[in-house]
Amino acid sequence: MGSEDKIISWLCRLTVITAFFFIGFIIGWFARPTTVNHGHASKSFLHDFLDEMQAENIKHHLRKFTRLPHLAGSQQNLDLAKQIRAEWMEFGLDSVELVPYDMLLSYPNKTNPNYISIVDHLGNEIFNTSLAEPVPEGYEDVTDIVPPYSAFSAKGQPEDELVYVNYGRTEDFFKLERELGINCSGKIVIARYGKIFRGNKVKNAMLAGAKGIVLFSDPADYCADGVEPYPDGWNLPGGGAQRGNVLNLNGAGDPLTPGYPAKEYTYRSSLEDAVGLPKIPVHPIGYHDAVHLLQHMGGPLPPDNWKGALNISYRIGPGFMDGLNQNKVRMNIHTNNQVTRIYNVIGWIRGAVEPDRYVILGGHRDAWVFGGIDPVSGAAVVHESVRAAGKLMKKGWRPRRTLIFASWDAEEFGLLGSTEWAEDHARVLQERAVAYINADSAIEGQTHTHTHSLHYDVFLKVSSPEDGEEGMTLYQSWHKRDNSTERDAPWISKLGSGSDFEAYFIRLGIASGRARYTKNRKTEHYSSYPVYHSVYETYEIVERFYDPSFRRLEAVARVRGGLIFSLADSPVLPLDCVEYAMSLTKYANSIYQLALKHPAAMEQYSVSFDSLFSAVENFTVAARDFHQRLDQLDTSNALAVRMVNDQLMYLERAFTDPLGLPGRPFYRHIIFAPSSHNKYAGESFPGIYDALFDIENAVDPQKAWDEVKRQISIAAFTVNTAAETLRPVVS
Amino acid sequence: MGSEDKIISWLCRLTVITAFFFIGFIIGWFARPTTVNHGHASKSFLHDFLDEMQAENIKHHLRKFTRLPHLAGSQQNLDLAKQIRAEWMEFGLDSVELVPYDMLLSYPNKTNPNYISIVDHLGNEIFNTSLAEPVPEGYEDVTDIVPPYSAFSAKGQPEDELVYVNYGRTEDFFKLERELGINCSGKIVIARYGKIFRGNKVKNAMLAGAKGIVLFSDPADYCADGVEPYPDGWNLPGGGAQRGNVLNLNGAGDPLTPGYPAKEYTYRSSLEDAVGLPKIPVHPIGYHDAVHLLQHMGGPLPPDNWKGALNISYRIGPGFMDGLNQNKVRMNIHTNNQVTRIYNVIGWIRGAVEPDRYVILGGHRDAWVFGGIDPVSGAAVVHESVRAAGKLMKKGWRPRRTLIFASWDAEEFGLLGSTEWAEDHARVLQERAVAYINADSAIEGQTHTHTHSLHYDVFLKVSSPEDGEEGMTLYQSWHKRDNSTERDAPWISKLGSGSDFEAYFIRLGIASGRARYTKNRKTEHYSSYPVYHSVYETYEIVERFYDPSFRRLEAVARVRGGLIFSLADSPVLPLDCVEYAMSLTKYANSIYQLALKHPAAMEQYSVSFDSLFSAVENFTVAARDFHQRLDQLDTSNALAVRMVNDQLMYLERAFTDPLGLPGRPFYRHIIFAPSSHNKYAGESFPGIYDALFDIENAVDPQKAWDEVKRQISIAAFTVNTAAETLRPVVS
Repeated sequence: MGSEDKIISWLCRLTVITAFFFIGFIIGWFARPTTVNHGHASKSFLHDFLDEMQAENIKHHLRKFTRLPHLAGSQQNLDLAKQIRAEWMEFGLDSVELVPYDMLLSYPNKTNPNYISIVDHLGNEIFNTSLAEPVPEGYEDVTDIVPPYSAFSAKGQPEDELVYVNYGRTEDFFKLERELGINCSGKIVIARYGKIFRGNKVKNAMLAGAKGIVLFSDPADYCADGVEPYPDGWNLPGGGAQRGNVLNLNGAGDPLTPGYPAKEYTYRSSLEDAVGLPKIPVHPIGYHDAVHLLQHMGGPLPPDNWKGALNISYRIGPGFMDGLNQNKVRMNIHTNNQVTRIYNVIGWIRGAVEPDRYVILGGHRDAWVFGGIDPVSGAAVVHESVRAAGKLMKKGWRPRRTLIFASWDAEEFGLLGSTEWAEDHARVLQERAVAYINADSAIEGQTHTHTHSLHYDVFLKVSSPEDGEEGMTLYQSWHKRDNSTERDAPWISKLGSGSDFEAYFIRLGIASGRARYTKNRKTEHYSSYPVYHSVYETYEIVERFYDPSFRRLEAVARVRGGLIFSLADSPVLPLDCVEYAMSLTKYANSIYQLALKHPAAMEQYSVSFDSLFSAVENFTVAARDFHQRLDQLDTSNALAVRMVNDQLMYLERAFTDPLGLPGRPFYRHIIFAPSSHNKYAGESFPGIYDALFDIENAVDPQKAWDEVKRQISIAAFTVNTAAETLRPVVS
Repeated sequence: MGSEDKIISWLCRLTVITAFFFIGFIIGWFARPTTVNHGHASKSFLHDFLDEMQAENIKHHLRKFTRLPHLAGSQQNLDLAKQIRAEWMEFGLDSVELVPYDMLLSYPNKTNPNYISIVDHLGNEIFNTSLAEPVPEGYEDVTDIVPPYSAFSAKGQPEDELVYVNYGRTEDFFKLERELGINCSGKIVIARYGKIFRGNKVKNAMLAGAKGIVLFSDPADYCADGVEPYPDGWNLPGGGAQRGNVLNLNGAGDPLTPGYPAKEYTYRSSLEDAVGLPKIPVHPIGYHDAVHLLQHMGGPLPPDNWKGALNISYRIGPGFMDGLNQNKVRMNIHTNNQVTRIYNVIGWIRGAVEPDRYVILGGHRDAWVFGGIDPVSGAAVVHESVRAAGKLMKKGWRPRRTLIFASWDAEEFGLLGSTEWAEDHARVLQERAVAYINADSAIEGQTHTHTHSLHYDVFLKVSSPEDGEEGMTLYQSWHKRDNSTERDAPWISKLGSGSDFEAYFIRLGIASGRARYTKNRKTEHYSSYPVYHSVYETYEIVERFYDPSFRRLEAVARVRGGLIFSLADSPVLPLDCVEYAMSLTKYANSIYQLALKHPAAMEQYSVSFDSLFSAVENFTVAARDFHQRLDQLDTSNALAVRMVNDQLMYLERAFTDPLGLPGRPFYRHIIFAPSSHNKYAGESFPGIYDALFDIENAVDPQKAWDEVKRQISIAAFTVNTAAETLRPVVS
């Protein structure tokens, strides 16, 4: 089987089509097909819009945007921004601007490279890890490929024994410290990539007292069975390594200007006071290098499920390496933090009827290297949506509401471009933003977590791009491959973080969603996709393996484009409160079940979830009544329509609390937040969840359970107050 | 001259009519008389509404609501709430509800009274202060008069030497500690009432290390020259004392539930974790008792301007009292904190056109005793406004927007009823509230601070109630008596705090205002009015001295009522951004001048206000352009009108920052906050002001000036972002 066949086989066998998606606020009126009097988006224009987006064009955009590396802060990425601005203007947007911010970025020192060594008892470096990845064929002459590094790593050259910490998850450190009796304090730890956001691994290592952390890609997590390494297949080669930032920003944006946009006049804190910077050196390596480090370790053998796929026998603890020779590991990290100018590209189509209502389609432009998948498969899709919208405007169309298209910069450095723009425009966005649709990688393989119910009209309007599914809608194709067990509908996950919707959804409370092709969440447990953030994310990997016909990207373009079209053009906003109520019910049950694992403590400290269940019931009734009133809405009354739309638009806002979550002031959404243990995953009722976490080991159980009660009270109040926003506007 | 003549003389000579008022957001279109196409409130109904409010009715309401004490949490105050609900329903409101909250209040122990003693070296109490005020004639049989106390005082019986701290202001403690070398640590301090909010005195005493604080009313601050004590005049009798809470809530509301409404299910913190409770005993006394304490003090003579008017020679420091006898002062404080149910009364008139836009008229109902002035002179005015609105509705009128009338409870305990309601409904209020007009005491004598420019159409429509001013408008009368030196207009002060607008204005960013009769700010320096918070605040003191004809209260009713009428009924909101811009310019200059007192440090630490001045200029241009566009508005386009009104309504919101001011998370307005040194006074650019405060004595000047720079940056950003909300809604 050739490589091309393999990827097709993989995709088809393992699930081609899943939009994972969520949205706090359910978009879609497919769920309520009898409700026909709301006034829909202009249907013929929608049809034209969807048809206008074509695979060939997306292929062309992808090719064009992946020729050169375009790292945030680089000249190439500014050039690309200017090119996009020029093309968007040409496509016909009303205005397009470059919006600069000056923020803290992080780059390797060009003259003093980063690497990890094994040093012998005399201090000699007897092994050094690679300084760069082998460059793929055809790109040998490209300059400015940044070598693998952990952005925002502390500088330093710590040297010590090595401790293997599996994925570096909270539970992994618990196991090491509590069960295996291995202390990481003062050691260098080595963790494999995967399962959780790398920044959480680094945070956990710091909490454990480690003085450095090495990250590596284990084939178990970054290679599919029977698939060759790139370029013969789409697996990660042994010399490839995953770049990425290792911040713990918790939504702060630029580390030096938390809460405020990084403009020229903005006050910047010192590096010592910066938000989220790791205090220890961090460095990523490939599995060829990792073997060398791992095979010289001491301590006990790893638990079976920690072993990964490196075909060696290694131990996990500190101790003598190589018998009597007291070899150690040394990290050599010289990465620099520096304030650097970045550029968002923001394009506008003024709304014809309600220009002060904004629908945003945003995705990032900056890439670690070429960005074949991340982000250009998404950026090409945005580009095609802009082109199609411009085409429609030339036919006389103008959306009811204002459309904003964003090409974010510096996403890879902590969602910085999108967060700064959200901070800069927080007031008008809170007043005016209807929804934010994210457009990061359109086809990849991130894992799913949990489910969320949602139906999209647009999934019914787009055809499946798969061979053998002619005549099938995207919805049918999706449903067939990834059915939720709880309801007869496709599986939808909660929004976590790790992409640019974060500030819009979690901080500002703007209804948000994302949709992409991914892999089968049930059978494939890869972390993201094998070549993620490596130099092998090229145009060719998409063109040869992921989407040779570019029809999958076309389908994603039509889904994302169709969503913004509906949101911008439907007289009554296509947002569904009843679906939200159903999700709240499920989340409340889920967090209650978690608490019930401690029946004695629940009794002893009089912990009750009654107020939360009561609030969810209030919300459910209010949502149902709201939609019943909506069915009677006189859509010819412009003010009446505006009023219900305001209720719909502001519902998501009502779930935010200006006080934020404990210790995470920029995560303000009470229903959804990135998990404290894995930024990529979404947690529901995160305040309660975090209060319950590891509570059996709390030093002061009374205080710990008081915090649980306080968080239940906050959640109940928030759900009640959201219900209030849906009731008739006068008491 | 009889008492009645005296008060009239005082009022006329010293300024009768000043509305002190501010509003972040200027109400009024008198300032722009050429702008006639905005569509005004239905004029004939406005005329009817103003005429409907009559002095005789207000007199009747005042009489009715002052017969019995109605302390927050008492049965009488619940009875009064029910009576008001019944009458508002009868007047014709669409709905009226009692809204309960369970919050921390504080009452004296009924069996163990509070008092202060002088104890001799054997521990004998050789002098005790009074347990109650002499009850005024006619009220001898009234039960449930709470004796003077400091609500939320800590319990305790500290005993030590006494230190006199003048008004207990920050500068007074600085003088004592830095110039006079007197250390208050471990001592009991005694401060005279006046100049600043009593809670700030208590906070300062705690910061100075005092273990108790006695508060007294000095005749210099609570008696007017040539006026007899009540009942022969309106001065404070020597046995009278000022009740009041001594919290430092900084806008938190109920001390046990900061940020959330004190509902049944709400989590309550422990008393140890409660917000703002003083840690030391506090007690108020009258000047007859104060003489006894003061005349036994040691230490140096007081500075001349600290002497007050008690006709004795006393010293200010600790030391031996009465020569060789080491007498001390003992406080005996047994006040209890207890969670108590209170009731707001909330009445609604549904808006005819935009029911989801709210205009609120709110004032408190609870009183320390009878509340003749505070609050019933205000509550009677609200009552009359409700009656007049009901009358109009019977004639077929219904306001364009929704009107909400509120009778708040527990204002005296820290603005608790209004704050809890604001917390409870924060989401809908932030979405929907157009303005909040406060209705505390309608006639009294609080001092002014600073100025703020504003003109009211309604002041032109109401006649002066003064004898000899027939044919004169209220505006002319006011202008004549209290002209601002900066512009040809009456003097307007900034909103500070100390009344129920706080949560609406400072926390939620809802345009707010207040208006009342007060005294001449230039010549009279009384703190509030002599009988403030004493048992002598009766119906009779108003009827005999303050407003025998009740025409002043009628004028206040028409002003407050006219304001809510205009706000609720004008198609285009009568809010003026250009006036706001002028104020911002003044405030920026003012804070810059303050910083310029440190030219060397400004230079050394590169402190620049350029970004703030630039932001104010941006705002000024945006405001002017906005009003120019408003002049061209097509008022027949319902959505177009709604859009500009949304911009007007949300402007005040744009000045708030969810991160709040440093250490004061519930004070979110960046332009206005209660002074950190006196809750009653408003401070502009409070973040910068506080950063500059006493900076010459900063321990770490670099850090202190960095904070100034950070605050300038925040202020500049906030003003810029507010300007953005006024620009055309599409980039």
